[in-house]
Amino acid sequence: MPTVSWDPTGPFIKMIDQRLLPHEFRFLELHNLEELTVAIKTMAVRGAPALGAAAAYGLALVAMQSSAETVDSLRDELDAAATEIEQSRPTAVNMKWALERILKETGEKEILDPEDLRAEILAGAKAIAEEDVLTNRKMAAFGAALLPDPSLVIHHCNTGALATVDHGTALGVVRTAHEQGKQIHVLVDETRPRLQGARLTAWELQQAGIPFDIISDNAAGYFLASAEVDAVLVGADRVAANGDVANKIGTYMLALAANDNLVPFYCVAPTSTFDLACPTGELIPIEERDPKEVLDIVQDGHPVAPQDSTARNPAFDITPNRLVTAFITERGVLRPPFAENIRQILKTKE
Amino acid sequence: MPTVSWDPTGPFIKMIDQRLLPHEFRFLELHNLEELTVAIKTMAVRGAPALGAAAAYGLALVAMQSSAETVDSLRDELDAAATEIEQSRPTAVNMKWALERILKETGEKEILDPEDLRAEILAGAKAIAEEDVLTNRKMAAFGAALLPDPSLVIHHCNTGALATVDHGTALGVVRTAHEQGKQIHVLVDETRPRLQGARLTAWELQQAGIPFDIISDNAAGYFLASAEVDAVLVGADRVAANGDVANKIGTYMLALAANDNLVPFYCVAPTSTFDLACPTGELIPIEERDPKEVLDIVQDGHPVAPQDSTARNPAFDITPNRLVTAFITERGVLRPPFAENIRQILKTKE
Repeated sequence: MPTVSWDPTGPFIKMIDQRLLPHEFRFLELHNLEELTVAIKTMAVRGAPALGAAAAYGLALVAMQSSAETVDSLRDELDAAATEIEQSRPTAVNMKWALERILKETGEKEILDPEDLRAEILAGAKAIAEEDVLTNRKMAAFGAALLPDPSLVIHHCNTGALATVDHGTALGVVRTAHEQGKQIHVLVDETRPRLQGARLTAWELQQAGIPFDIISDNAAGYFLASAEVDAVLVGADRVAANGDVANKIGTYMLALAANDNLVPFYCVAPTSTFDLACPTGELIPIEERDPKEVLDIVQDGHPVAPQDSTARNPAFDITPNRLVTAFITERGVLRPPFAENIRQILKTKE
Repeated sequence: MPTVSWDPTGPFIKMIDQRLLPHEFRFLELHNLEELTVAIKTMAVRGAPALGAAAAYGLALVAMQSSAETVDSLRDELDAAATEIEQSRPTAVNMKWALERILKETGEKEILDPEDLRAEILAGAKAIAEEDVLTNRKMAAFGAALLPDPSLVIHHCNTGALATVDHGTALGVVRTAHEQGKQIHVLVDETRPRLQGARLTAWELQQAGIPFDIISDNAAGYFLASAEVDAVLVGADRVAANGDVANKIGTYMLALAANDNLVPFYCVAPTSTFDLACPTGELIPIEERDPKEVLDIVQDGHPVAPQDSTARNPAFDITPNRLVTAFITERGVLRPPFAENIRQILKTKE
């Protein structure tokens, strides 16, 4: 069951409501642009590739619902909608990538009837969602080949089926290695503050029958220093042209600990996550989210933080390229020098 | 109000029950050895120096309650009790230090009446508790002198009044700098899994009127990379002879991030935390605690982790000496080469 899909009966976007997992598995139906941006901001859908597909379907929804009677006025509406969707979360580049790809492909065609443009937009969105699964399968195969058997891996955040249309990026590597019969055990970073690891990754692994232990993010360094960990696997929300990685908060410290113990640190990301327009990580905008996400934590029936406490809540950090062992993309494994190899691989068409 | 004190009316040990903070401030009365070891294991009392004082008073409690009629049989009981207390938490060396100091000092004296031995044991315990506050004040003054004005500091776990008899070690530095009129703002690592930062450090800072923001432990790297942080301050549960530090889980990754950004990483620890008998950090036993501490987390009214999830829960990690900028002790500030300077400072009597 794909995480994000198009339901023609509404039409509406159908997605797994990730805010309710693991205690409840429920689908959400998004009927308009506003419902989509709320779903994105509140993280009912999250994960860079899943956001890309959601954004693409959002554009299709706008096209379907528009009352525009000319191609030009429909194009104007789509441009405005794309900007609105893109700005709903600033760090992951996949929404921008998906929206630009559809607008560019349809923009290059001479279309006279707005109905034809609507059909093209929907076809473009569907192509992005369908390609995502193939892309993930390819990355996973490249990545699985890098894991010894048996393997103990550390995984941060959620990069599984739930973060994509299906299968996953970093967690897709684990899934494929498991499918291949390799014995993989995952140390699941719980991933504060939103706990996507404990909440979503653990749930996916349990469903797939892959053994795991949840750890506090603080414990990753301890296990890396123990010399028992074979690899660290993470996804990415945006990779700069030089290989700096914006990813879920905590990735940078995890990469430092991997590096300090000579454990391979693999960033599993489709080429759609690479942003050649962004020379270095410093230029990637980092979203700071509601402090409540840090403060709303309950143990033993009581809120943990004292009343009136304040918090800071950056959602992502930048891992410098020097800490990345390799990028695993759908076109192959990239090793340093990254600036050159990223440029090369983005030029090649499959 | 000291965190741990002796109440002669029972006699019993009186301590702030740290499991209930910040929503409830309540004292716990410990009437016997078993109640003490339960309080230590469940972390009603925690923090290396507070554990040292609690252990010392525990020995006094055993002495008072013993029905031994000879000094020799009382000494045997005390030795057995010391072993039991020491083993209730293996990583912090301060319990061992306190117990050995009292047993050694009283062991060197020729005591003929068990009543005299009881009095000596109690006096030794009281001396340890009283000295702790003076020690903390001295460390704090050395440490505060190292902080610029204004300062933004990152602090891990709780090392405040609650972790000691009063004032604190690393947080004592913050308290003293604040008392001196310096503008100190603290980024409080929430410190998963037990959340001593969000729970206890935030509470202490709020009481003291020192401004702070709670952050997820994952966010420390982001702030260190921002070039706005002036220092990282941590305590220690045990420092090996070479300067390797056993401290709350997550300290190692925090030290890596400080080091990677050239931010001073200060370990504030009394000389009682240094263990010359332990050559390197690898030899320090690391306690692994109940997985429930990782799994029992609730958000939005629901347990976060899927049912039947498993977890790993090491409570401490080792920060290699190369990542420590300086140790702040009650006898002064220690800089590298640590092996030599630690040996020197432990030799000098104040």
